[in-house]
Amino acid sequence: MTATSRPVIGVFDSGVGGLTVLRELLRQVPQADYLYFGDTARLPYGSKSVETVAKYAISAAEFLVKQGAQHLVIACNTATALAFDRIASAVRVPALGVIEPGAEIASTASKTRKAVVIATEGTCNSHAYQKALAARGIEAREKPCPLFVPLVEEGWIEHEVTERVAHIYLDEIFAGEFADADALVLGCTHYPLLKPLLRRVVPERVTIVDSAEATANAMAQRLGALDPSGEPSVKFFATDSVEKFRKAGEKFMGWKITDVAHVDIES
Amino acid sequence: MTATSRPVIGVFDSGVGGLTVLRELLRQVPQADYLYFGDTARLPYGSKSVETVAKYAISAAEFLVKQGAQHLVIACNTATALAFDRIASAVRVPALGVIEPGAEIASTASKTRKAVVIATEGTCNSHAYQKALAARGIEAREKPCPLFVPLVEEGWIEHEVTERVAHIYLDEIFAGEFADADALVLGCTHYPLLKPLLRRVVPERVTIVDSAEATANAMAQRLGALDPSGEPSVKFFATDSVEKFRKAGEKFMGWKITDVAHVDIES
Repeated sequence: MTATSRPVIGVFDSGVGGLTVLRELLRQVPQADYLYFGDTARLPYGSKSVETVAKYAISAAEFLVKQGAQHLVIACNTATALAFDRIASAVRVPALGVIEPGAEIASTASKTRKAVVIATEGTCNSHAYQKALAARGIEAREKPCPLFVPLVEEGWIEHEVTERVAHIYLDEIFAGEFADADALVLGCTHYPLLKPLLRRVVPERVTIVDSAEATANAMAQRLGALDPSGEPSVKFFATDSVEKFRKAGEKFMGWKITDVAHVDIES
Repeated sequence: MTATSRPVIGVFDSGVGGLTVLRELLRQVPQADYLYFGDTARLPYGSKSVETVAKYAISAAEFLVKQGAQHLVIACNTATALAFDRIASAVRVPALGVIEPGAEIASTASKTRKAVVIATEGTCNSHAYQKALAARGIEAREKPCPLFVPLVEEGWIEHEVTERVAHIYLDEIFAGEFADADALVLGCTHYPLLKPLLRRVVPERVTIVDSAEATANAMAQRLGALDPSGEPSVKFFATDSVEKFRKAGEKFMGWKITDVAHVDIES
């Protein structure tokens, strides 16, 4: 036993997508307590500018630290891609983003050293994944898939329309110079819900890299051995309606969400 | 000539969708000058709660009045549906929403007195169109079509995927008791761009009612005869990146957008 008390981890996303990261954290690091913040009044971040995303993300990070977070997980690819350094230097607790862990797993998995990254427009335009992968000797092609988030939110995760859209987005990417790419990085927290469908769309040899799993794994390594006693507690905060957060969030968590508080961080 | 100076009309939307209304206003009321405000940092409103939408919309309306707007057009169906009365009473200039004009045109067009309204989740849940149509003796069925906005923003306005989605959404609505509905109200400012595609999807006898045209027509009637000299000026404001607004906006306006200013109304 190396720790005397349970660490408090603040997890932050523009909405409910980051719950895929929280779910993995609870699985891999059940010895911590969690605060989850969803900025549902201002989502999505994926199509917005660096300045706007940085401003929103910093206010969310500061809120979580004020609530007692000792570690911060930026469970939002767009916020990590566009503003990780600015968020990390705005708070006094250690921060972890979703991009470095995802790139690390892709690097372990890829033999051909070629990967495809799918993400929001903002994440792709920042080339944050391309840089993180290049640092590991992997060449990457990035593809924005703006229809995937609304399709997931519509609940069409196994729908023929979604499969058609996935083919339109991905067939042309796994082609030409990237016909032998063997890793697909899911660079948006909504995408893990499409994993079974994407498995059918991309070539069989491709490893699908889920940043949520990778990030939880990185946090487990960072925290080391923890007191195994007790159950994790989770407290949720949302900037838009609590009821809407609960309803949408349950699809991502797979279990009932209680204890959601409304927060107004704009005023 | 009944007016001695050009009226200044403030037009407001969560993003660029309201430009379909501005375009119609410029066509039908070219004797006015325009201020257009797109709340692009906080869009979309369609999936957000009444409280959040009302707060955002009132701050936008107040901004336009401060900039000199003498009339206000709420060119956003969700804001009109959820918060028209609150917006109208928060400002001291006359306000016009998109719902009453749309309902009026539907009433003129419908012989069977049955209409279908397609809109965002927020607009449908408010039943604002249903009430406005019921007041005119029309029975309405409302259907949220959350994928239409992202499909339009992806530029897929004549795409096979969009046509398939439209059939999935609409075939079951124009059925049963509503098999003889003869009006389709486009209750979201993005939808007029899908008019040619929707024309192929819904039965031939159905009149497609565009709230943008209806609203511009209502404003023209409200203002009466105006000084016909001079050219309309338009000044744009956006809460997210000016460059993004310009790029997305040009698709809706069909011409080059200049003179966009960035505004931060949160701080």
